[in-house]
Amino acid sequence: MRILIIGASGKAGAAVHHTLTERGHELISVGRTSGDIRCDIADPDSLEQLWQRTGGVDAVVNAAGDVPYRPLADLKPGDYLSAFNSKILSQINLVRTGLDHVNPRGSFTLISGILAREPIVTGAAAAVAGGAVESFVRAAALEISPQRINAVSPSVFTESLDDYGTFFPGFVPVDLSEVARAYVKSVEGAGTGQVLVP
Amino acid sequence: MRILIIGASGKAGAAVHHTLTERGHELISVGRTSGDIRCDIADPDSLEQLWQRTGGVDAVVNAAGDVPYRPLADLKPGDYLSAFNSKILSQINLVRTGLDHVNPRGSFTLISGILAREPIVTGAAAAVAGGAVESFVRAAALEISPQRINAVSPSVFTESLDDYGTFFPGFVPVDLSEVARAYVKSVEGAGTGQVLVP
Repeated sequence: MRILIIGASGKAGAAVHHTLTERGHELISVGRTSGDIRCDIADPDSLEQLWQRTGGVDAVVNAAGDVPYRPLADLKPGDYLSAFNSKILSQINLVRTGLDHVNPRGSFTLISGILAREPIVTGAAAAVAGGAVESFVRAAALEISPQRINAVSPSVFTESLDDYGTFFPGFVPVDLSEVARAYVKSVEGAGTGQVLVP
Repeated sequence: MRILIIGASGKAGAAVHHTLTERGHELISVGRTSGDIRCDIADPDSLEQLWQRTGGVDAVVNAAGDVPYRPLADLKPGDYLSAFNSKILSQINLVRTGLDHVNPRGSFTLISGILAREPIVTGAAAAVAGGAVESFVRAAALEISPQRINAVSPSVFTESLDDYGTFFPGFVPVDLSEVARAYVKSVEGAGTGQVLVP
């Protein structure tokens, strides 16, 4: 398949890029500062240009979306708006603008995160973004069929435990290879409207 | 208890107001165009003035939050932003600004909706808002204790079936009295971080 991948410079995105390439797919990587095509998916104008450059694809996979982490008392409206723009609306816009450029039986795979269901201290904005994305995927699946849409919702990465482990006490971490496997299930499988927990 | 209620002019809000009053609580109703105090909770300035006028309360219950319903292909970024402002950020701001004005053992009760979990056609923006609110409640509960926070997540109201029933084929409707009962559980009970499905 011809697959557009956003956020391939991140830990998860790199693992997904590696795995999908190994499985024989043709990857077109998109990033703000690296990749085959430069595009900030949080910028609607940039997104329109993206589709003009890529042409049709069979699948879109996203592994990008930053959200601010702060104690609840320190999270300001601007922090929630930032999470909305960079992780909610950007992914919705990717789907919205991509419907005409993705194969009629193609798929979208978005990213949410465990905090939507199992929160941590400082993770309220991340929770908001993840919960919104997971509900969007379930809702959008009803209306884009036979195109498909799923979300991958990982726990803290095993490979990130040194950096972030203390924020996730007792959480079962997930290897990046398992995260990539969930993306494979979404891209090559037939499921839609699913939240895949690797 | 002294309870601030937002959206008491709506169907759910009116039922909640009635039930909580019947149970002996002192209700202060807040609405954009009606109620004891006029305030648009989607407007941060208006919200700050609200707390100056109410003083301390034991509980805050919200039943307000409009979202646009449209086919997915017709939902524009502005529609999602509208849902974000009126149902996500407005409720988050209510909690954020209310932390200092609610009794240390008081509670916040927000509203989400069944579409967060069981979507319908035209309901993608509603799903996004509901999913975000439910995840926020779970996350915020960790950080505001001993204050409490829950969300009530109703299905289509039995009393609204004539107007909206065709959008919810086969959904089990919920009587407004049961919606009100869920708010009672949140306000008078001890639970926190819960999504109450009446």
